[in-house]
Amino acid sequence: MVEQTPLRPWQRRLYTVIFEADTPAGRAFDVGLLVLIAVSVVAVLLESVEGFRARYGDVMRWVEWGITGIFTVEYVLRLACVRSRWGYATSFFGVVDLLAIAPTYLGWLWPGSQSLLVIRALRLLRLFRVLKLGHFLSEANLLLTALRSGRRKVSVFLGTVLVIVLILGSVMYLVEGPEHGFTSIPRSVYWAVVTVTTVGYGDLAPQTVLGQFIAAIAMVMGYSIIAVPTGIFTAEIMEAARRPITTRTCPECTSEGHAPGARYCQDCGARLLRPQPPETPPTG
Amino acid sequence: MVEQTPLRPWQRRLYTVIFEADTPAGRAFDVGLLVLIAVSVVAVLLESVEGFRARYGDVMRWVEWGITGIFTVEYVLRLACVRSRWGYATSFFGVVDLLAIAPTYLGWLWPGSQSLLVIRALRLLRLFRVLKLGHFLSEANLLLTALRSGRRKVSVFLGTVLVIVLILGSVMYLVEGPEHGFTSIPRSVYWAVVTVTTVGYGDLAPQTVLGQFIAAIAMVMGYSIIAVPTGIFTAEIMEAARRPITTRTCPECTSEGHAPGARYCQDCGARLLRPQPPETPPTG
Amino acid sequence: MVEQTPLRPWQRRLYTVIFEADTPAGRAFDVGLLVLIAVSVVAVLLESVEGFRARYGDVMRWVEWGITGIFTVEYVLRLACVRSRWGYATSFFGVVDLLAIAPTYLGWLWPGSQSLLVIRALRLLRLFRVLKLGHFLSEANLLLTALRSGRRKVSVFLGTVLVIVLILGSVMYLVEGPEHGFTSIPRSVYWAVVTVTTVGYGDLAPQTVLGQFIAAIAMVMGYSIIAVPTGIFTAEIMEAARRPITTRTCPECTSEGHAPGARYCQDCGARLLRPQPPETPPTG
Amino acid sequence: MVEQTPLRPWQRRLYTVIFEADTPAGRAFDVGLLVLIAVSVVAVLLESVEGFRARYGDVMRWVEWGITGIFTVEYVLRLACVRSRWGYATSFFGVVDLLAIAPTYLGWLWPGSQSLLVIRALRLLRLFRVLKLGHFLSEANLLLTALRSGRRKVSVFLGTVLVIVLILGSVMYLVEGPEHGFTSIPRSVYWAVVTVTTVGYGDLAPQTVLGQFIAAIAMVMGYSIIAVPTGIFTAEIMEAARRPITTRTCPECTSEGHAPGARYCQDCGARLLRPQPPETPPTG
Repeated sequence: MVEQTPLRPWQRRLYTVIFEADTPAGRAFDVGLLVLIAVSVVAVLLESVEGFRARYGDVMRWVEWGITGIFTVEYVLRLACVRSRWGYATSFFGVVDLLAIAPTYLGWLWPGSQSLLVIRALRLLRLFRVLKLGHFLSEANLLLTALRSGRRKVSVFLGTVLVIVLILGSVMYLVEGPEHGFTSIPRSVYWAVVTVTTVGYGDLAPQTVLGQFIAAIAMVMGYSIIAVPTGIFTAEIMEAARRPITTRTCPECTSEGHAPGARYCQDCGARLLRPQPPETPPTG
Repeated sequence: MVEQTPLRPWQRRLYTVIFEADTPAGRAFDVGLLVLIAVSVVAVLLESVEGFRARYGDVMRWVEWGITGIFTVEYVLRLACVRSRWGYATSFFGVVDLLAIAPTYLGWLWPGSQSLLVIRALRLLRLFRVLKLGHFLSEANLLLTALRSGRRKVSVFLGTVLVIVLILGSVMYLVEGPEHGFTSIPRSVYWAVVTVTTVGYGDLAPQTVLGQFIAAIAMVMGYSIIAVPTGIFTAEIMEAARRPITTRTCPECTSEGHAPGARYCQDCGARLLRPQPPETPPTG
Repeated sequence: MVEQTPLRPWQRRLYTVIFEADTPAGRAFDVGLLVLIAVSVVAVLLESVEGFRARYGDVMRWVEWGITGIFTVEYVLRLACVRSRWGYATSFFGVVDLLAIAPTYLGWLWPGSQSLLVIRALRLLRLFRVLKLGHFLSEANLLLTALRSGRRKVSVFLGTVLVIVLILGSVMYLVEGPEHGFTSIPRSVYWAVVTVTTVGYGDLAPQTVLGQFIAAIAMVMGYSIIAVPTGIFTAEIMEAARRPITTRTCPECTSEGHAPGARYCQDCGARLLRPQPPETPPTG
Repeated sequence: MVEQTPLRPWQRRLYTVIFEADTPAGRAFDVGLLVLIAVSVVAVLLESVEGFRARYGDVMRWVEWGITGIFTVEYVLRLACVRSRWGYATSFFGVVDLLAIAPTYLGWLWPGSQSLLVIRALRLLRLFRVLKLGHFLSEANLLLTALRSGRRKVSVFLGTVLVIVLILGSVMYLVEGPEHGFTSIPRSVYWAVVTVTTVGYGDLAPQTVLGQFIAAIAMVMGYSIIAVPTGIFTAEIMEAARRPITTRTCPECTSEGHAPGARYCQDCGARLLRPQPPETPPTG
């Protein structure tokens, strides 16, 4: 099923334009794609506004078919120039690219009203294509590195928040009861999340004195523990940003990662070239 | 009362499975327990939803008795394989383990409706058993260390917040008065907590111009002082994350501060004793 | 008017108990005071609750007079054992101490109802006496140092927030107008503060599409710029916490504040005793 | 059109007073301007309050004309003493200075009521003149440097937030539907922004169980990702604050990283060139 034929010259040229961003043509292609995605997302948003749909329905339909047409051509071209067609079609971005064009054709086949709504919203998945472009940004990579290395600490934090809102929700269900809107524990837990995250809709609010006292403690707790993910992420991002500083290389074994103040190679014991002052990034 | 007889071989084997997580059987036991706790918590949550209880009441009762049965067997096994039965039964986790099974039996003895509600909610205490598993996570220990070493600073911060909301609440009670819902100082203090923590339900809101002016200042204050616990915790977590670096000492010059992966002293070039893998907690 | 007579032995002994916290008696005095302040604050809070005042009014009056009596004795003793009576009476804490007892006597002289309310609330100023005890906590000093050294940056931040809410409030006044509750620019500015600080009461909310669009941008802005004071304070607290690390003293000129990796005194050029590894707090 | 004649002595003297802040006269001029801007902004605010306008309308008109008069004189003087008149008039601050006086004259020419409202609000643009003074504050520069160097990371963050609220809004539009107030996708996206930024007005709140579940996840997400800009900015501000230390270089060994107050090189003991005062920006 998997075809691994060598790429022909025109395929190779197409590949550098569509999949890469190092050439001017490749960059122009990416920018054009970004604009098209934005237009298509705005179209989906406006189409859901009743007054707008009533007046500009015809224009919208033309725009929709135009965008879908361009995306269809793009999808076919992508399939045409990759080495492994099946591999691309089943990859994450291959599926997203297919889902970006499918809804319009499906809506043409099934002209039902309710199912149409769900299918139309699927077009918003085109947003995920933006992620493709994100890989070219070193900033995104830095943030991802920081998030990834802090993910276990963040999991512990989220687990703690989960336990807090579950217990808090149950306590408030007992204290306030159904007569003040806390009709079930899941609903009370929903209130607890709204409170601890400091969102505070106010659709549910404690009305007994004890309930307000517990709520006040929950608020202060939620207000304070926001410091935990912030601290985790700040430490991770500083660590991720600091790592490039250790560009000193051992002249003997070419190992890297030495502390700024190190005078001997920590991997082979050879003398390092020039001790750098602590905490100063190299500015030369 | 305290029995300190030497453990028999089957007790020793049981102990490694139930209390430890180093063997495959021990890990499987912990995972199974975690799943059971999750199921039991979801059951308590769903049972409080009226529509759900009416329809699936019978299934719920079977699930409840099944979970309680397994937890009872587990509790008896725990008692059977510890050195000091009384010591375990009176420890924090021993009490939690008992409270995890007691409510179902109590609900069977006292079939009253209101007291039942409180007793049923007690089953949520099973959540605390999750904490037992938390000790195996080095991330949780790091966060706890950071929280513990910053607890006095956080107390000073919380004390300051307490004084602010007390004074703010009293002032608003005088400014807005009972006719705008600020019926007593405790209620005004509740409003002050809702405002300073940026929760903002809106069940109580200032209506006089002076009240809104004071509220605006309180909001900006609350919005800004969130920086204090964040700063405290960030500093602590960076300190706690940095500390493991300092535990290795050069056998020649006794210098410290070597990177976890260093093999030679960065100050005198002597060979360090035992290289630690970078940033990976020992997982056996 | 200022009396500077030498203190007699009993005055000296009283002074160490009342003003200092180094002796057991002095500590016991401070703890007792703290308890009394807490009781008195709780009394003020409860007195404002109508149902409570109606039932326990008599008890409350006794408690109030008891506390005031003790504070009066304390105030007289303080005056008796200080070197400069006038200096103490006009100092910040002297005034707070007077204001802590005055309301009860004033309420006895002027038994009017509305003015009484304001006078009674004055008793909450006793809370400021807690600050007196705060000076003994090194944590409070660290936080204060961090706040003080960051106060100019925080002023710039608060000034920026002020300009943002003023302009945002004016724009929303024009966009939404009086018919949606934005009856004047000050009221719109109040809404802007509620929104930018992410409090979000919901007593005022934009209803036009353009208003909601502007509000959404304001929210994301407010949500993001909270990072600014947090970053400022985190940097300051890490700076303040790091400073004690530089406890290395030059053997020649006894100057302090050398970088951890320094080998020569930065003030006189003499060789420092033992270079410390960078970023490691002394643990011996 | 651009005139580049050499400045005459009186122009030069005027220039140092109006455009610079190094002389006492220049500082007094800036402070006076700041006070005038504050008065004028308060006037615009109060004028929009109906009750106030009805009673003090005459006074307000006098105040307004007085301030406009002074600003007009200032604008003319600025034009008189700059080298390139056209260059100043078309610069950002030149346009702001013109917009600061234009509304009052325009309101006199066009005495319509609705257009007047917009024109009057334009006077608030005077606030931007405060920015002119901001350049003299080294703290503002430090914060700007930190913001500027972190702007690409913040863009990635804001882009991610945009994608999250778009997808979340669409999902909630499908889940809750028009009958619970989510009448269109743009409106649902507005709700998503209100929720993710933890503002939480409560004018729109999910009412189905599934909607509340998704909302709870969105809240926890919003509550946690606030850590990202905070971490970015904290890292940037610490980097920006650290950089000034690195500017001094030892004349002997060219080492860097000396503390601002250091007088001798910490690496070779040679005398450093010019001691800088610690943490004080040069203000002379």
